[in-house]
Amino acid sequence: MTHSVEHRRLANAIRALAMDAVDKANSGHPGLPMGAADIATVLFTRYLKFDPKAPNWSDRDRFVLSAGHGSMLLYALLYLTGYDSVSLDDIKKFRQLHSTTPGHPENFITAGVETTTGPLGQGIATSVGMALAERMLAAEYGDDLVSHHTYVLASDGDLMEGVSQEAIALAGHLRLSKLIVFHDDNGISIDGPLSLADSVDQVKRFEAAGWNAMRIDGHDPEAIAAAIDQAQKSDRPTLIACRTVIGFGSPNRAGTSKAHGEPLGATELAAAKAQLGWEYGPFEVPDDILNAWRAAGARNNAVHQAWTARFAAQPEARRAEFERRVNHIVPAGFDTAIDGLKRNLIANPQTVATRKASEIALDAITVAVPELILGSADLTPSNNTKTKNLKEISPGDFAGRYIHYGIREHGMAAAMNGMALHGGFRPAGATFFVFTDYCRPSIRIAALSGIPAIYVMTHDSIGLGEDGPTHQPVEHLASLRAMPNLAVFRPADTVETAEAWQIAINRTSGPTLLALSRQNLPQVRHDHVQENLSAAGAYELAPADGGKAEATIFASGSEVELALAAREQLKAQGVAARVVSVPSLDVFLEQPEDVRKAVIGDAPVRVAVEAGVRFGWDAVIGENGGFVGMSSFGASAPYKEVYKNFGVTAEAVVDAVLKRRNA
Amino acid sequence: MTHSVEHRRLANAIRALAMDAVDKANSGHPGLPMGAADIATVLFTRYLKFDPKAPNWSDRDRFVLSAGHGSMLLYALLYLTGYDSVSLDDIKKFRQLHSTTPGHPENFITAGVETTTGPLGQGIATSVGMALAERMLAAEYGDDLVSHHTYVLASDGDLMEGVSQEAIALAGHLRLSKLIVFHDDNGISIDGPLSLADSVDQVKRFEAAGWNAMRIDGHDPEAIAAAIDQAQKSDRPTLIACRTVIGFGSPNRAGTSKAHGEPLGATELAAAKAQLGWEYGPFEVPDDILNAWRAAGARNNAVHQAWTARFAAQPEARRAEFERRVNHIVPAGFDTAIDGLKRNLIANPQTVATRKASEIALDAITVAVPELILGSADLTPSNNTKTKNLKEISPGDFAGRYIHYGIREHGMAAAMNGMALHGGFRPAGATFFVFTDYCRPSIRIAALSGIPAIYVMTHDSIGLGEDGPTHQPVEHLASLRAMPNLAVFRPADTVETAEAWQIAINRTSGPTLLALSRQNLPQVRHDHVQENLSAAGAYELAPADGGKAEATIFASGSEVELALAAREQLKAQGVAARVVSVPSLDVFLEQPEDVRKAVIGDAPVRVAVEAGVRFGWDAVIGENGGFVGMSSFGASAPYKEVYKNFGVTAEAVVDAVLKRRNA
Repeated sequence: MTHSVEHRRLANAIRALAMDAVDKANSGHPGLPMGAADIATVLFTRYLKFDPKAPNWSDRDRFVLSAGHGSMLLYALLYLTGYDSVSLDDIKKFRQLHSTTPGHPENFITAGVETTTGPLGQGIATSVGMALAERMLAAEYGDDLVSHHTYVLASDGDLMEGVSQEAIALAGHLRLSKLIVFHDDNGISIDGPLSLADSVDQVKRFEAAGWNAMRIDGHDPEAIAAAIDQAQKSDRPTLIACRTVIGFGSPNRAGTSKAHGEPLGATELAAAKAQLGWEYGPFEVPDDILNAWRAAGARNNAVHQAWTARFAAQPEARRAEFERRVNHIVPAGFDTAIDGLKRNLIANPQTVATRKASEIALDAITVAVPELILGSADLTPSNNTKTKNLKEISPGDFAGRYIHYGIREHGMAAAMNGMALHGGFRPAGATFFVFTDYCRPSIRIAALSGIPAIYVMTHDSIGLGEDGPTHQPVEHLASLRAMPNLAVFRPADTVETAEAWQIAINRTSGPTLLALSRQNLPQVRHDHVQENLSAAGAYELAPADGGKAEATIFASGSEVELALAAREQLKAQGVAARVVSVPSLDVFLEQPEDVRKAVIGDAPVRVAVEAGVRFGWDAVIGENGGFVGMSSFGASAPYKEVYKNFGVTAEAVVDAVLKRRNA
Repeated sequence: MTHSVEHRRLANAIRALAMDAVDKANSGHPGLPMGAADIATVLFTRYLKFDPKAPNWSDRDRFVLSAGHGSMLLYALLYLTGYDSVSLDDIKKFRQLHSTTPGHPENFITAGVETTTGPLGQGIATSVGMALAERMLAAEYGDDLVSHHTYVLASDGDLMEGVSQEAIALAGHLRLSKLIVFHDDNGISIDGPLSLADSVDQVKRFEAAGWNAMRIDGHDPEAIAAAIDQAQKSDRPTLIACRTVIGFGSPNRAGTSKAHGEPLGATELAAAKAQLGWEYGPFEVPDDILNAWRAAGARNNAVHQAWTARFAAQPEARRAEFERRVNHIVPAGFDTAIDGLKRNLIANPQTVATRKASEIALDAITVAVPELILGSADLTPSNNTKTKNLKEISPGDFAGRYIHYGIREHGMAAAMNGMALHGGFRPAGATFFVFTDYCRPSIRIAALSGIPAIYVMTHDSIGLGEDGPTHQPVEHLASLRAMPNLAVFRPADTVETAEAWQIAINRTSGPTLLALSRQNLPQVRHDHVQENLSAAGAYELAPADGGKAEATIFASGSEVELALAAREQLKAQGVAARVVSVPSLDVFLEQPEDVRKAVIGDAPVRVAVEAGVRFGWDAVIGENGGFVGMSSFGASAPYKEVYKNFGVTAEAVVDAVLKRRNA
């Protein structure tokens, strides 16, 4: 065990590596690793259940460095405990191109990093989803297979961000007792002492949210250990506020904002090593210390083996299902289920809102995909996400598949990231489309790190009606289509909605967003049971009737109805127009050029209609194409009047076509 | 005074109007107005300092209905107390097109509405800015001219949103003792009882943030009055948690989520009126009650007159300056100051980051525009927003012009809205550009309601370098350009930065965002002191050298340097190319067609270069134009390597031109 080497020397190995790496990169944040090294050392050498040789072991404890700028703390720990992902050479390449040690921890780059952090507040909010997923999976598979803690190291900044409140309120409410958060309470922010901007009593605040909370000296290893012991016994999540000194060991910078985000420089680095009693050169870790760390990394081998034995003793089908679940493998029968659903939808045309179409799809999909977890940020009756077969999660009872996230869109999206990252679940969370603005930072983390979250965003346009412009998205389709690796779908009817859900479930490489209507829409699709026409983002829904197309009308979602009506009106005037449905403009723009050109076609006139802004559509309709949509915010009125008021009508589409045809 | 009519009947007038209006619209939220009517009645008839005939009186108390869905509460109050903006006819047009009574309160539509609310959390966070502006303006003009309270009615949803934590932490820290928040603690959310999703002890939470906090019965007028009395005496902001019954008076819906967001229907409405003892028909308010309300509305006449007399006694110059300030009139000498600045910048070319160029501009602008208040969400040394002449605000000391907002981007943006809405200040707040994601809901409120906030967003691209993809914006330019009424500027050098600031200060009809580089950029502008070339969004920076242009290269910000280098390389190959600088793509796309066409020109080849996604650029370069930029998230490395890695180089621009020229 590690007691052969005193705690302080183990911690100093982290400090030294952090100082050296930041200095070599001439960029980075030495302050946090130096200040939090004692906490991390106690946690990793005495408590954390992990196996560096099996970073994806499903029953490992999770450690989330919410204060992602302190990435060198994590890289040092991964190297010292023996992960293959971070060698000493990798540490020397800190913050360099294609290294496993980027500026902030990226879980898609470095094994052992549980989640991408850096944007403050994301880590702690994500960890709530991890801790929730742990209890939910345990409710299904038992504590024999699933029983681990989620530890978080959070900075002052993490706790100042609003999302932290949403996260801790949810965790406290649900009594996620295996969630343990260390607050690196160093009293320093970039602008100077924290007292410049903050005077929150964090212990009291967490207690108000239903947490177990305490204050300790973050440099006292036994106090840290005692706090973890106490936390593990609590029936509530625990905050351990650890008073620390940022840049601990640096004679001239410790305890100041100067320690936070810049290299110490050669002189101060040498002085810090001297003060710490660290007699070794750059990147040098003496054998006794490295061996002690490696022993700490290996100390759970027997625990892991015992778990493996318990797992091997499970029935084969149960093992296979468990592995399928934690690895996000889509159930074998899923596409067949969708075919059945689509066959039924095509045979029984319905005029319903696409939020209702989504509920219809979910009736089938929740059966076919048992890992699909739904929820809403307190808009359940509007989002249509709670199908009849879903039981809800409640405090202390995790045997359910529906989550009342509360009015916490940001906390919801972050928790979804955590659930997906934990494994075992595919989270789908809902709110009004306009409130994607509230959870955008977490959506971006999902897109960046390839998390297969699904956003069920209803009330997707001015079609929301009376609630008015604060609730009517107009720029949101464009703003989200612009985000890399997020697939945005806006289906037009029950069939396209089923197809969008099919794509979303099958898309395990990143998040998918469904923008769904509040208002009823007619069924426009009557064929193609087995082919997912939405998969390429756009397709010809209605060909030109009677000869070569003089115009192509592009539309998404609720405006496909208008496009089809315009086509009919044009036909009556002897103008042949085709209609292209564009359920996903962003997916379509990623298709190969020949695919795009074939769908766009060569009709001389191109017009798009969408109850949103034009921004982005020129790529399809050309700079001289016609666009019928919004160029301002919306208005409060019954939705048909709103559409008319802003001129988003079939007649306007006809006019746009004729104007260009006759030009 | 109003005591001639008992409190309950006054409150019931609000309840009846809310029920009737929601029923007539067949849409809306009766629950909150019915539940909070007692609080509002006590506040408006006994405490609130306001003058319905002078809704813009600068020293009025502010009342913010953070729970904007309860808009009928506010409309009823405005009608009953005698505002011209809301008549009984207007109330009958609740939620109808072009009415003054839209679904959620819109300050740009209805006099007496202090701020647009509806997106939860915005109201309470905005009110912090109002309360701060009140103290700051008082620090300049004295309590004789500026001394009023800011009252807020907040729902459970407002307090669940994360932004509320940022807001209350800031207010508690700064000891904004004249901010008084009523929590409409009705224990009900849309999904059902609040206990489905929440168990936060709000009183304890607010106390943890440094607030005075108490719990009362929200239907007991004397308890409400006593609480306000106590709050007004506190040296801290106050939370009054009012236990209320949602839909108070409705026999079958009171206290349930059913009361929240739908009409009662004729039967229940009649039953509610009966239970309340309200014997009047739809929209009928008997004279004695209306008169009592009107008397409440008129009760501050003498107070207002006394203020007017005090104001009139001020020196003329001081009066004029005060009126200029509260009405957001730009100082007369401002443009001249900018001319001087630009002359100096042009005469002394500098290679600096545009964040540094912004600081240089601010050295002059903070002198010329005394109402300009700067601040940062704890990135002051990186955002370069704290010029030497700015003293900082601190708890209890409001004589300053710099705000340390803490790591609270969302709270900052909302507080900025409140400061601007209060009047007297032009707030400019800063963070990294990527973190616009954290404050987008407040930016949207600014854009929607025409608030002249200024966002100083530095580290605007992959040029941020080592911090990596979580900190490197790639989609943010597109996502914000898509937002109506937000002007996004990405200047290329010191001169364009000065022009962007000139536009931002002069733009009082909506918010302006400056996206500024971390890295140094050469000066590219050497002329046009008096004309603001950036004002049209784009202009020809470098003509084709030697004959007709074969290509036009468009670029913004840090990539203008690359465009100019590409032009030189092309020239060496005998290809004449012109360069168009596009400091604001969104402003440019709003120009008349002839202006756009003249700038775009008729060169056969068009290529744009920008270290962001292509989305939106097709409107300028055409669907077949070339684009050199990003199509994925970025990477962690020194910035020059990141540019090279993603192929955002002058050479790539040259290749894109040649490929199209030779096609």
